[in-house]
Amino acid sequence: MSGVLYGVGTGPGDPELMTLKAVRALERADVVAHFAKRGSPSNARAIASAYIRDDVIELPLLYPVTTELPHRSDAYQQSISCFYEESAQAVAAHLDAGRTVCVLSEGDPLFYGSYMHLHVRLAARYPSEVIAGVTAMSGCWSQSGLPLAQGEDVLTVLPGTVDDSELVRRLSTPDAVVIMKVGRNLPRIRRALEASGRLADAVYVERGTTQRASHMRLAAKEDDQAPYLSLVLVPAWSARPCPEPVADINAGTRAMGAAHG
Amino acid sequence: MSGVLYGVGTGPGDPELMTLKAVRALERADVVAHFAKRGSPSNARAIASAYIRDDVIELPLLYPVTTELPHRSDAYQQSISCFYEESAQAVAAHLDAGRTVCVLSEGDPLFYGSYMHLHVRLAARYPSEVIAGVTAMSGCWSQSGLPLAQGEDVLTVLPGTVDDSELVRRLSTPDAVVIMKVGRNLPRIRRALEASGRLADAVYVERGTTQRASHMRLAAKEDDQAPYLSLVLVPAWSARPCPEPVADINAGTRAMGAAHG
Repeated sequence: MSGVLYGVGTGPGDPELMTLKAVRALERADVVAHFAKRGSPSNARAIASAYIRDDVIELPLLYPVTTELPHRSDAYQQSISCFYEESAQAVAAHLDAGRTVCVLSEGDPLFYGSYMHLHVRLAARYPSEVIAGVTAMSGCWSQSGLPLAQGEDVLTVLPGTVDDSELVRRLSTPDAVVIMKVGRNLPRIRRALEASGRLADAVYVERGTTQRASHMRLAAKEDDQAPYLSLVLVPAWSARPCPEPVADINAGTRAMGAAHG
Repeated sequence: MSGVLYGVGTGPGDPELMTLKAVRALERADVVAHFAKRGSPSNARAIASAYIRDDVIELPLLYPVTTELPHRSDAYQQSISCFYEESAQAVAAHLDAGRTVCVLSEGDPLFYGSYMHLHVRLAARYPSEVIAGVTAMSGCWSQSGLPLAQGEDVLTVLPGTVDDSELVRRLSTPDAVVIMKVGRNLPRIRRALEASGRLADAVYVERGTTQRASHMRLAAKEDDQAPYLSLVLVPAWSARPCPEPVADINAGTRAMGAAHG
């Protein structure tokens, strides 16, 4: 009998935002796998650490070092593809031995997560279950207290890596927009928000829901330093007539402080 | 000292997909409020029921009966606006009395949730915290085992209530698309998917993550009956070259059965 593969969403950063189901899956796991860059710890593993048993087998899946390769090059694509193939084989070996494997995924496993690359290689061959998680964007707009989309609003989720004209085109709508994968794309994102007249509404969030979280109006952010997993939130609702103004972001933060303190 | 307002996401339906933070907030609550239609129980309350203490004060917030009013009419808007105002006052009375109030919200509170209408009226006046939840869409694509968006894919979340031409325009892209609020809009959604050539890829989900969940290719669904909160998922990834085909939706369901049984 083969083991069961679980894709386990750990949520956006605050360990309290893990689901009951994720915690219970980890309690039963024989093997816990997690993606990480060589030399830097896995975020997902850090979030879930309190629920990883001491006697579990850990399987770190370390991304190949490809800093010298452009992301759209064939060489990069091939290196990454080989890495996912080898990772799937390493997980499959444990499943073949009858072990339950939990693959940790920050946020939600099937929402821009690396787990997807294992899922498409393994889910047809082994019993599997994906345990949904709270996404980074939900964590961020919740901590900001920022209502993003309501009623007939459309929400667009846009990787910050898309090209300049596409950024401007997508922002030049009344849609709510979440820009993911900000990092070194922040100067381009800022210019696109300016060009589309939405910079004043944009909220920048880094390390959302963690103890080092920082939320601010992007227009008030003085530098262009941003971690890869930071987000920019552009609400649709601010354009709507509303009985009272949407709570200011700093008021939201103060209120949260009061609730915790 | 006023009480603290919590917007509590209960997740998409499976009580195991509640977060640890939501459960702990309910354990401490003095008052639990929930939106519902008169005569039908609140979904959010049903999801969270195991964690609602017997001695808690329950505050049902019952939507006004407006079936005779068109949704875009002034009379409807006014009736709903009054309802949210009165609901906010009812919650505020408990906060003024120093009671902690948890307002339950199916899925994630600030993602198309009714809680948003209380939040914009109360968060500037009272300490408040929003507890993010797993969205219905995450719950559905996870249970389907359907990778939706990856890498540079754009995801569009589209209420099924937008008009026909807008549905077709939004679907005529390579984006991943989630169509929410399906209900009686299903025939229009089906026609828009056909017109944009994406019907074959579309997956229909009702009561996602609950024990009565149903997942199927929309093209194989023979009737146009759909609950209001059903979803249609249209993956972007299916267009990508992929080492193995994305797991078939029924295979995914079988695998889940095997994993549970």
